[in-house]
Amino acid sequence: MELTGLSFIGNYRGSSTGAGFQAANPQTDATLQPVFHSAAPEEVDRAVRLAADAFATYSQTSGKRRAAFLRRVADGFETYRQELAERAHLETALPMPRLLGEVGRTAGQLRMFAGVVEEGSWVQARIDPALPERQPQPRPDLRSMLRPLGPVAVFGASNFPLAFSVAGGDTASALAAGCPVVVKAHPAHPGTSEFAAQILSEAVSAKGLHPGVFSLLFDRGLDAGTALVQHPLVCAVAFTGSLRAGRALMDLAAARPRPIPCFTEMSSGNPVFVLPGALRKGAAALAKSLYASFTLGAGQFCTKPGIVLVPDTDETGDFILELAGQVDLSDSFALLTAGIAREYSRATQARASQATLSAHSKEPEHTSAFAARATLFEASLDKLLANPSLADEIFGPDTLLVQCGKPKDFLRAAAALDGHLTATLFGDEEDLAANRELIHILEQKAGRLIFNAFPTGVEVTHAMVHGGPYPSTSDPRFTSVGSLAIYRFARPVCFQGFPDAMLPPELQDANPLGIARLRDGKPEM
Amino acid sequence: MELTGLSFIGNYRGSSTGAGFQAANPQTDATLQPVFHSAAPEEVDRAVRLAADAFATYSQTSGKRRAAFLRRVADGFETYRQELAERAHLETALPMPRLLGEVGRTAGQLRMFAGVVEEGSWVQARIDPALPERQPQPRPDLRSMLRPLGPVAVFGASNFPLAFSVAGGDTASALAAGCPVVVKAHPAHPGTSEFAAQILSEAVSAKGLHPGVFSLLFDRGLDAGTALVQHPLVCAVAFTGSLRAGRALMDLAAARPRPIPCFTEMSSGNPVFVLPGALRKGAAALAKSLYASFTLGAGQFCTKPGIVLVPDTDETGDFILELAGQVDLSDSFALLTAGIAREYSRATQARASQATLSAHSKEPEHTSAFAARATLFEASLDKLLANPSLADEIFGPDTLLVQCGKPKDFLRAAAALDGHLTATLFGDEEDLAANRELIHILEQKAGRLIFNAFPTGVEVTHAMVHGGPYPSTSDPRFTSVGSLAIYRFARPVCFQGFPDAMLPPELQDANPLGIARLRDGKPEM
Repeated sequence: MELTGLSFIGNYRGSSTGAGFQAANPQTDATLQPVFHSAAPEEVDRAVRLAADAFATYSQTSGKRRAAFLRRVADGFETYRQELAERAHLETALPMPRLLGEVGRTAGQLRMFAGVVEEGSWVQARIDPALPERQPQPRPDLRSMLRPLGPVAVFGASNFPLAFSVAGGDTASALAAGCPVVVKAHPAHPGTSEFAAQILSEAVSAKGLHPGVFSLLFDRGLDAGTALVQHPLVCAVAFTGSLRAGRALMDLAAARPRPIPCFTEMSSGNPVFVLPGALRKGAAALAKSLYASFTLGAGQFCTKPGIVLVPDTDETGDFILELAGQVDLSDSFALLTAGIAREYSRATQARASQATLSAHSKEPEHTSAFAARATLFEASLDKLLANPSLADEIFGPDTLLVQCGKPKDFLRAAAALDGHLTATLFGDEEDLAANRELIHILEQKAGRLIFNAFPTGVEVTHAMVHGGPYPSTSDPRFTSVGSLAIYRFARPVCFQGFPDAMLPPELQDANPLGIARLRDGKPEM
Repeated sequence: MELTGLSFIGNYRGSSTGAGFQAANPQTDATLQPVFHSAAPEEVDRAVRLAADAFATYSQTSGKRRAAFLRRVADGFETYRQELAERAHLETALPMPRLLGEVGRTAGQLRMFAGVVEEGSWVQARIDPALPERQPQPRPDLRSMLRPLGPVAVFGASNFPLAFSVAGGDTASALAAGCPVVVKAHPAHPGTSEFAAQILSEAVSAKGLHPGVFSLLFDRGLDAGTALVQHPLVCAVAFTGSLRAGRALMDLAAARPRPIPCFTEMSSGNPVFVLPGALRKGAAALAKSLYASFTLGAGQFCTKPGIVLVPDTDETGDFILELAGQVDLSDSFALLTAGIAREYSRATQARASQATLSAHSKEPEHTSAFAARATLFEASLDKLLANPSLADEIFGPDTLLVQCGKPKDFLRAAAALDGHLTATLFGDEEDLAANRELIHILEQKAGRLIFNAFPTGVEVTHAMVHGGPYPSTSDPRFTSVGSLAIYRFARPVCFQGFPDAMLPPELQDANPLGIARLRDGKPEM
């Protein structure tokens, strides 16, 4: 695979006249070749029009056909596993084993959605047969199922250059639902993005799909993304990134003449409640695991534990001592972009004026615009309650410890929380049973409640929820990870009184696809 | 039952100091007793705080308990059937048989949702069991299900004073999901609203629920509704009404510090495509049925056919002649409010400058602020394409005929349409088979596609979709009628690694509720 630096507008390539930009290597601060060219406004428009044209046929393809397409993309990722990971490593400084794993995860997500749409029951077919004898008037035949929304704009995320970027979870779920996708590449990993686009583009063509099913736009600034969200033919937006950028997209989407759903996954502190039994069982081991979790991927996980509430027990001191020791001994980290490193530095300095700075990892060995030191803060519960912004996410290798003296303190802390992707409880089963009220509060604050594991592991399965109340996402009714993510891009359509032959196969009497359906509200046998 | 004119703030009654207003009888223009009192800002706040308090316990009630509560409300509606319909008749001028039917429909909706939550499978339980042997690392146990969103603000609709008002579909589905409800009463039928609130309030108390589960706020203006949508503790909004009011609520909800879902069902022209076979079969009968449909409820149905596209065939003249004759012979109608009548008059006069006024029903017998004449307009397809606002809804007894000369004209007309609740095709099966492309376009424009029936019949069933692309609703992924309406008010929550006993019963291994679940993405046996 070779890099050209040009956008993909269906099966055309973008011009090389737009403003140029290059990726940088966060480990060396070196600029990477080639130059990438920002898409012009007319290229954005053309990509969306092609997507809308493609929708007419792509929305009518069978689940089987879409599955074959998604699997072809997954095959491509596996074929180019090494190249993808190596380029991503250069552009992000994330370690090779993690990136090789992320290629596998990306392929796995594509295959999971392929399985879901090939099997077909995801469309939630419902059949309420006609009741011609009903009084005072007959009931007509009513059948509904989910149909795709229309062209979707996807924004590549900086922190998962493969699994949440060009062919990541948002793209895979939108394509699976039957929606063409226009991706705005993240400018921090344009080379990885172009490789992924080459694989996608090849699959579109190999499977004989309309070329407008997939486009990729490069842009060094905000113009292409803004134009995408405002384009009249775009029907939904998916984004993972900062609260500021996510909220700006939400506001753009809501202010359109025709508002559209805008799924943004943004900012989450992922509170961890350490109950007394957890410290009794092994305070030092838990501290080590916490350190590993909050510095994983240089603390750039959406589910990084950014606030940890600990009880006041005999073992608390050991726990804090071990944690601070881990941080003190740690090397510095290279963050994804110089902008993220600047913001990390600003946010940790601001926090140092509101909380106690307890530990700080070593100074970087050489000066780098990407470097960041791991940071451990401590604050009292009263400070947190007086200033709830202490629970806000700082993107990078930082966490905040809050000591809770009385059992009721956990409830007070939980009640004061904003929305988060996850909330975690560590303890023994007695701790858990004694904290039902805490669990009920946390259920309202987060999309995933975890017992005795750190939140940084996000499985791609059918039951996964990677979503939560604002500001962790724009809409807690949806997830961006797991098979439920497909439901963001579909809407129910009801067919009333249609002859059987004119119905989609999912709704025909003979159930030719053999899918699970509801008949009069009950599972059909 | 007696009327007091006071709001319901949980089990307290509102003050009588707020600005007063009275309902009017649209048939006589007479003012109706008693005086109703607008809720003060602190009463709105108190109702929402009570709802948030109630959420802590109500969200944890079993489906069985919520079903018993909803059935108690349904029983109340049946007990007070006659009083409810009589008061609604005074306040709306809708005919008694329709209103008696609407009481039954309201009770039926409550019972449908009771059945859905008592059975329990609606929560979409998903279980991905732990894989302790998985390499390179074990998979944790993951289980997800839908949980209620939080307090919901419901706005009563003018045109369904029972079935889409205080205890209507929005309230029933939110309560079924486990969300407390604060209703803002529609000021055109406050007496009907108070009766309904008495029934709901009695049921809350009889079933021993937290009194904050239900409140009703009167307001003659916009203040209480605005305060509700902006209240930090409100988690979702449901509204049926005009595009202007609905869009204003959408904008308020989107501009909050924490944006919330705002379900507005607004404006729909409900296009009807008459294919040649339909006219061959009986042009006059079809014209009579169309007249009955577009004047049903004085044309104040959300699904009124407001634009009818007809082919140019030998029978087209007869069809138009019969339709115009029906309109000419028709008496005038009493609309729901003087404001609706004024707006109908303004909108039909404006349309008369853009389309041909073909028929007009008789002048009203006496001068009335509520009176409206049925109106039939005609326009060419070119006029419609040049001015797509001709397809916009006019709320009241009006419809617009558009002649389509060539077969391709139907496609051009369909492609130009905005979003609608419904799109209808009349014809024979050959017509339908010859119009697959038209059906594919209409599927993108409407939530319900109907063959050979008028859209004004909206069944309350499991497969019904009463929703559609903007501007017919705020979000085409949801419906406000039918059992799918419950999904507006719930969000998935994932429990990871929880001991069985600490899981909600829906997710416990033994499946004590016997609900349908997915295990590893497959239906559990």
